[in-house]
Amino acid sequence: MLIIHAHPRPSQSRVVKDLLSVLHTRPGAEVRSLYQLYPDFDIDVEAEQQALQRAQHIVWLAPVYWYSVPALMKHWFDQVLAHGWAYGHGGEALKGKACWWVASAGAPLSAYTPEGMHKRPFADYMAPLENTARFCGMQWFKPFVVHGGHSTAPEVLSGWCASLKTQCEAFEALSAQEGTAP
Amino acid sequence: MLIIHAHPRPSQSRVVKDLLSVLHTRPGAEVRSLYQLYPDFDIDVEAEQQALQRAQHIVWLAPVYWYSVPALMKHWFDQVLAHGWAYGHGGEALKGKACWWVASAGAPLSAYTPEGMHKRPFADYMAPLENTARFCGMQWFKPFVVHGGHSTAPEVLSGWCASLKTQCEAFEALSAQEGTAP
Repeated sequence: MLIIHAHPRPSQSRVVKDLLSVLHTRPGAEVRSLYQLYPDFDIDVEAEQQALQRAQHIVWLAPVYWYSVPALMKHWFDQVLAHGWAYGHGGEALKGKACWWVASAGAPLSAYTPEGMHKRPFADYMAPLENTARFCGMQWFKPFVVHGGHSTAPEVLSGWCASLKTQCEAFEALSAQEGTAP
Repeated sequence: MLIIHAHPRPSQSRVVKDLLSVLHTRPGAEVRSLYQLYPDFDIDVEAEQQALQRAQHIVWLAPVYWYSVPALMKHWFDQVLAHGWAYGHGGEALKGKACWWVASAGAPLSAYTPEGMHKRPFADYMAPLENTARFCGMQWFKPFVVHGGHSTAPEVLSGWCASLKTQCEAFEALSAQEGTAP
């Protein structure tokens, strides 16, 4: 499992840091922390593509910034998921792999309602990422989104981590299954 | 009108370049080309915020990359639309301003259907940007999206430019109207 991790201020990270700990302990997990690797946004495209090729399961782990991923992860999409490699003519490098967005949304679930400050269900904001994965031929696993991370008590956060561990097993099992029966 | 323009490869730009020409000739237009200003992603937040404060109408002009804006424009959102300035306690700098996404989507409209390669209507991909603007208290004007830019004949592109000019007038008029009657 390859974990593409993007947090611009790791020292201020609490939720994503704990989620990363859970994912990091999975068998064969490889973590690539983009803000540590590329503080100047100068992504090594070849290294990233090689890491993707080694993995069957890919996780995008980040806090939600403006209803999406932090800018460096978007830059990673723009640079690494290249035409002729990830999509388009000859672009089949990611076909059949499994992809999962694991995110911390900060605001509580109630904020993602017509009456709430974010106006729509969180699912409405997922379309760009889901179709980024699908356009590259990847299987899309239902995103794991921690809501209310801004004010989550330690015991609640432990619950989220336990839930992530369970879903992680399902992610690994399901995608391997689907991967062998294309 | 402030035009935030983001194209990573201006020499390869055809559609966005022409749209920019239309917008640039509007009275009082100011253009900030992010990839020219900040090739190293090192955004001058204060300069960007000052430009925003000078304008009543804000245009986000860019090609569509992975169902969203290019990474440097996302970085601009993450950096410039700051807590305590654009939203949150004391964050009212953009309140009442008008915001408009002008974009070139490359693929034809038929690609944005359940049968097409992008699976959903383009409107499904607009939620993150729309709510970025709205969360900052801005009025959101219906996006102007050129479809089929990858293979648009010059005369078709001229038609898009004429249409942009007309809608530009509506954008300026409508938002000024709404702006004076909050």
